[in-house]
Amino acid sequence: MNNPASTAQRPYQSINFAQKLGLFSEQWTPKVIAEMNDYQFKISRLQGEFVWHAHAETDETFIVLDGLLHIDFRDGRVSIASGEMFVVPRGVEHKPWSEEEVKLLLIEPRGVLNTGDQGGERTAQNDIWI
Amino acid sequence: MNNPASTAQRPYQSINFAQKLGLFSEQWTPKVIAEMNDYQFKISRLQGEFVWHAHAETDETFIVLDGLLHIDFRDGRVSIASGEMFVVPRGVEHKPWSEEEVKLLLIEPRGVLNTGDQGGERTAQNDIWI
Repeated sequence: MNNPASTAQRPYQSINFAQKLGLFSEQWTPKVIAEMNDYQFKISRLQGEFVWHAHAETDETFIVLDGLLHIDFRDGRVSIASGEMFVVPRGVEHKPWSEEEVKLLLIEPRGVLNTGDQGGERTAQNDIWI
Repeated sequence: MNNPASTAQRPYQSINFAQKLGLFSEQWTPKVIAEMNDYQFKISRLQGEFVWHAHAETDETFIVLDGLLHIDFRDGRVSIASGEMFVVPRGVEHKPWSEEEVKLLLIEPRGVLNTGDQGGERTAQNDIWI
């Protein structure tokens, strides 16, 4: 296949979401693919239920690349399909979940943990680049 | 068609890129669709050549939703296809262009002008929500 990105001269190279997602199969382990100022772009695979948590200091952006992601709130729910995004406001408790595997782009400040203020065994190692 | 997002309870509603892009046809006029902290997500339609410019204070993220975007630098070029992203570093002169229409998601701090430090007739009105 002809990948137009391959024509980029160094050090200018686009980042292909599908190519990066193909480099790992484990779920709930966000991987950093790019930075913009002090924000990071992370891709992740999710399936099943996560834990309730909040991020007191920052909003958190979810862009769904493939699949259907649900985020439960204490007073409602949003369902985010491929080609859609949602910004979870800072301090708002939320619980992501999905029936089938979801491929996701997360955007948030460098240093934000996946479990926010909740911690626990579901906390993924942070700042892992792929 | 069954849009899963339609099941979201108020005030929780996903943002659909294609639906937002369908609301306008003019090119080179970024429209804000969401905010994360002091950053804005903007969609835009581009075709042809833009002006050389730089943003001295911030990186700028391009995510291509449809089409093939080229960004020329003084010492190279990157080509960004649908499903790909690129972050233009702060202070780096760049000129976006495309042969066919490109549908794009831009991410940058609130208040950033499309022409950066260059100004001129190609400067779009800022902070227009859609």
